[in-house]
Order: sequence, then C-alpha cells, then structure tokens
Amino acid sequence: MQYPILLISSSAVHGYGYLECNKDAIKALVKDINSPVLFVPYAAARSEWDSYTDKVRTFFKTLDMDVVGIHTLPHENVLDDFGVIFIGGGNTFRLLHTLQQQDLLGDIRKTVLSGKIRYMGSSAGTNMATRSICTTNDMPIIYPANGFDALNLLTCQVNPHYLDPEPDGTHKGETRDQRLAEFHQENDITVIGLREGAYINIHTDFATTRELCIGGINGAKIFVKDKAPYEAPVNEKFVLE
Amino acid sequence: MQYPILLISSSAVHGYGYLECNKDAIKALVKDINSPVLFVPYAAARSEWDSYTDKVRTFFKTLDMDVVGIHTLPHENVLDDFGVIFIGGGNTFRLLHTLQQQDLLGDIRKTVLSGKIRYMGSSAGTNMATRSICTTNDMPIIYPANGFDALNLLTCQVNPHYLDPEPDGTHKGETRDQRLAEFHQENDITVIGLREGAYINIHTDFATTRELCIGGINGAKIFVKDKAPYEAPVNEKFVLE
Repeated sequence: MQYPILLISSSAVHGYGYLECNKDAIKALVKDINSPVLFVPYAAARSEWDSYTDKVRTFFKTLDMDVVGIHTLPHENVLDDFGVIFIGGGNTFRLLHTLQQQDLLGDIRKTVLSGKIRYMGSSAGTNMATRSICTTNDMPIIYPANGFDALNLLTCQVNPHYLDPEPDGTHKGETRDQRLAEFHQENDITVIGLREGAYINIHTDFATTRELCIGGINGAKIFVKDKAPYEAPVNEKFVLE
Repeated sequence: MQYPILLISSSAVHGYGYLECNKDAIKALVKDINSPVLFVPYAAARSEWDSYTDKVRTFFKTLDMDVVGIHTLPHENVLDDFGVIFIGGGNTFRLLHTLQQQDLLGDIRKTVLSGKIRYMGSSAGTNMATRSICTTNDMPIIYPANGFDALNLLTCQVNPHYLDPEPDGTHKGETRDQRLAEFHQENDITVIGLREGAYINIHTDFATTRELCIGGINGAKIFVKDKAPYEAPVNEKFVLE
C-alpha cells in the first residue's frame, strides 16, 4: 500500500489562476484532513517566504483550509501536527539546498512513507518527490552541498513543465527531448515529462512506487533509456518500466 | 595585459554550419599559432568524444589547422604543446564533473593566464571560462562533487543561448530573464546574456578581466543585480559593472 501523493507540473497554467487548473485533484488529496496545510516556501527567495505563504493561503481558503509556513515554526518535530505537506515551486536548487541545510529530507520522507502526512508538490516540489533533481529545468543558482538526491518517494524522475519539441524552431539551444536524452546518457532511470496542467497521482491502493495515474490536462510523455518516448495513459493506473 | 579569450554563445546558429557564424573571430584568435588545436570534448557523452573531435577537426581544416582530442593524450603536461585550447559545448554539468575528476581546472586556468595558451569556448565551454556554471541552461544530469566553480578567466557570468522573453508565450515555465533574476536573488555577479551568433572577445591589450568586446551577430544583454538589464555595446571595448 502506498500513501497519497499528488505531483503537479505547474501551479501556473495558461488560462487558470494559481493552482486552479488542478483544484479537483487537490481537493481529493486533502479530503478529511483536519489540520492546516504545512507549506514549504523554500524554492523562493528568503525575502518572499511570507508573501508566498499568503498566496498559498488564499488558494486553500477556497477549500476551507488554513496554511502554515514551515519557516514560522520551531524546527523540532515540525511535521507532527499536520496531515498534508505542500512543497511549492520556484528554484529546485535553492529548495534542495535549504532542505539539506535544515536537515529535513529524511524526516519528510519517513513521515510520508509512514502514512502520517500526505504529500503535494508543484514544479520544484514535484522534482523533490522523485529520485533526484537531475531532471529539473531550473538554473543552478546555488550549490546543494550534499548532492542532487531528493526524497525518492517515487523511484523515477519527473520533468515538470514538459514542452514538446517545436519542429520549426530557429533557436539552437537544446530541446527538452535532447536534454532528457543527455540525462539518459548518464543515468538509467525512467523520466515522466509532465506537461503544464497535468499531474501524477499515487493512490493509497497502489501496490508499488512504480504504479501511477496521470490526470489533469495535457498529459505526459514517458522517457525510458534507449527506447522511443511514448504517451502515458491518462486517468488510469499504469506501471512504469 | 590580458590573454586572448574567445567565448562563443553557440556553435550552432540558425542558417550557418558548425562554428561558421563566428569563423572570422576564430581565425583571428588562432592567427600565427603553429600547433594543432587542443580540443576538450568532455561536455559530450564519453561514447561521442572521438566523433565530436572529428567534427571539430573538419571545421579547423578549413583554417589549415589540425585538432587533437585531449582524451587521446597522456594526462601529464597535456597543455604544454598547444597554443590554443577549445572547450566545446554539450552538457555543462558533465563537462565540469569531468574536468574536476581529471584535475584539469587549475592547470588550464594557470596556463591561459600565463599567456602560454589561448582559450576558445562555445556554449558549455563558454560557461566554463566564467566564475561558475551557475548561469548555464543545461540539465543537471550529473553532480559535480567539488562545487559549481569554473575557470574564472573572466570574473562575471555568461548565459549562452540567451533568449529574449516572448511577450505572448503561453508556456508558464520561467523565462530566461526570470531565471537570471533568481540567480541575482542569491548572487551579486554581473551576467552577460549572450544571444546565439554573438561572442565575447578579450583582447591582449585589455587591462582587466572586466574589459570586454561583444562581436558577431545578435548582441548581448547585461544583467546587473538590482538594475534594469541593458543592451551591451557591440564591436567596441566596454567595461563591465
């Protein structure tokens, strides 16, 4: 049995307000939770932690839930009083660096896997739930001194904000598919290219961390080393290679 | 007095063959050099080092110069017999990781600054000439265990393949300008956003590592922390803030 995890590609989707595109899935994740949401704003700059938390609070108010920023709490047993943790987007390197500095990675992983807390991530927070941050799109603005390993709640990689190649593009920087091919030159781990508007759901009745369900809009493409990428099934359970 | 450095944004420019867009600048850099070009293919996958070197050899043949891949030589005093080193593009994390593993960063820096070898970089090889790889666009496919510091031949940052924001874009992933703003939230170092087709030249008569000349096509935008970005002058010396 797995524990509920919701990994959103992007909090901002063209034509939708903040997190609104995936509101139904968020509502399902937080169902019957009686605590506030524990929000982790560490992907943003330190000066923005309060305002970022306010933005998240405004969203969850529409679901009748309060939000507490993890940066406002004492460090000791910080996860104990919450039924759901939400790690928001921003810069993935900054997020990992801060979680390493605060020695939070082990505690978050343990608490999610024990079933005591449900996990919601968006963008950088989605990268954080996977094996490593090695498939982030972000700029390496800060060095995470303890490596690129993330929470490993699912044993694959995610590339959020996945963008299909533009056949007629004149810009010669690598396409996303080329970058993921470079990743597979050095690593043999499956990558989910999660388009904006899509999310990954792990349900409680799934048996392993390789069982997933893609929901939302726009879907996802699956990249397996040395194979042609393929479109993920949507709204049904499938098992990753 | 500085030593000749040529930093190209991209070897591939729309409408041009490999390195052809900046051929005049390359010709000027290698003028009167009697050795082959020492080529560093480490931004590519190991299986591609030979074919990558062949591609570079084909280009330099048009300038009547031979090319030797650094991976084909014994490690000891590998820089001694060459008048110019070219570090090619690919993945910046892989390049830095390999240079760290082979303990080459200190030797390359010392040899360029002593005037014994001229430096040419393209894309990842351009990032490598700057303070750090913190403004690369590449995916972090491999962890450089000794940090993100690069050769520091010029004391600023470069963002190669710089792309101006698209005002009507519907994709909500960060624009390049937003990524550079995130860099400046954590670092106070000037960044040169070098558009494809443009290059940075350091001439021998420049007095400091903050004197530069932007050449080629498409130009560059300069990003200074807490200031509005501005267009760099082209084809004339200017001094970075």
